[in-house]
Amino acid sequence: MHEQNMVHFAPIGCVHSPHQDLAGMPIQPPAAKEFAGTIEIFPEFSDGLKDIEAFTRLMLIYHLHKSTGCNLTVTPFLDTQSHGVFATRVPKRPNAIGFSVVRLLGREGNILQIGDVDILDGTPLLDIKPYVPLFDAYQNERYGWFEGKLTDIDVARSDDRFKK
Amino acid sequence: MHEQNMVHFAPIGCVHSPHQDLAGMPIQPPAAKEFAGTIEIFPEFSDGLKDIEAFTRLMLIYHLHKSTGCNLTVTPFLDTQSHGVFATRVPKRPNAIGFSVVRLLGREGNILQIGDVDILDGTPLLDIKPYVPLFDAYQNERYGWFEGKLTDIDVARSDDRFKK
Repeated sequence: MHEQNMVHFAPIGCVHSPHQDLAGMPIQPPAAKEFAGTIEIFPEFSDGLKDIEAFTRLMLIYHLHKSTGCNLTVTPFLDTQSHGVFATRVPKRPNAIGFSVVRLLGREGNILQIGDVDILDGTPLLDIKPYVPLFDAYQNERYGWFEGKLTDIDVARSDDRFKK
Repeated sequence: MHEQNMVHFAPIGCVHSPHQDLAGMPIQPPAAKEFAGTIEIFPEFSDGLKDIEAFTRLMLIYHLHKSTGCNLTVTPFLDTQSHGVFATRVPKRPNAIGFSVVRLLGREGNILQIGDVDILDGTPLLDIKPYVPLFDAYQNERYGWFEGKLTDIDVARSDDRFKK
């Protein structure tokens, strides 16, 4: 990959959450119903939040800043078989981009209160997009190796396999 | 923003689509049912696709490479009122990150055939995540200013307001 093809982003804010360690975290937002947190949007981007409080879900795109390196085939938390990294949601990816659909609970100025938080404390936030069911919600899809693996998602937690 | 906080990504592939111009494009995947395309994953990442063909939807995260600059409040294609950029899906954003949930139609080696394509031809792809309804599909959410604006989404098309 040539340097001129690199893409550069600057964080717009920071996620504050109860999760201090990559091990023991909920695997995805449906497993994180009891975890609330906040988003601190840097003041220079505050005007970009106008009217966001009328949405009940937000898509967060963030930098998995504690993730380094990756393998192209991986054994994810929820399975004992290996799969291609692009067929999984594991945090060690060629580009360390995280994605979560969280609940928006409230807003005070440049601070958003959020629920269903499966994100590490201190995570740099790259973008917020409002969740629109018509664009984003597809119920009747085949979901590969995950099928049959999600019955214990409420209690499943990460271990340390994707630490540095 | 200090240089040391910048985040750097290298594309994993490229999206090929019928959309050659930012004007006249479908607004979102539900408006793009007739548009098919392909994803070319660069050969060095090909092993990361193992088992992906068992999913029927993929989330694509990509660089909106024709988008430059942004305003924090914007009037989106679907409305006549202005909103904060983070309450919209407009392509000119503080970080030019695009997101689409496309249909996976097939795979041949490092090429994926996709449907519901609302992405510009030649777009650099940063990540693929498999769509898992339990993690990603939320039907009963409030969606702010979009409510009442989506009845014509099938025929709505972009204009040139977000061109350079």
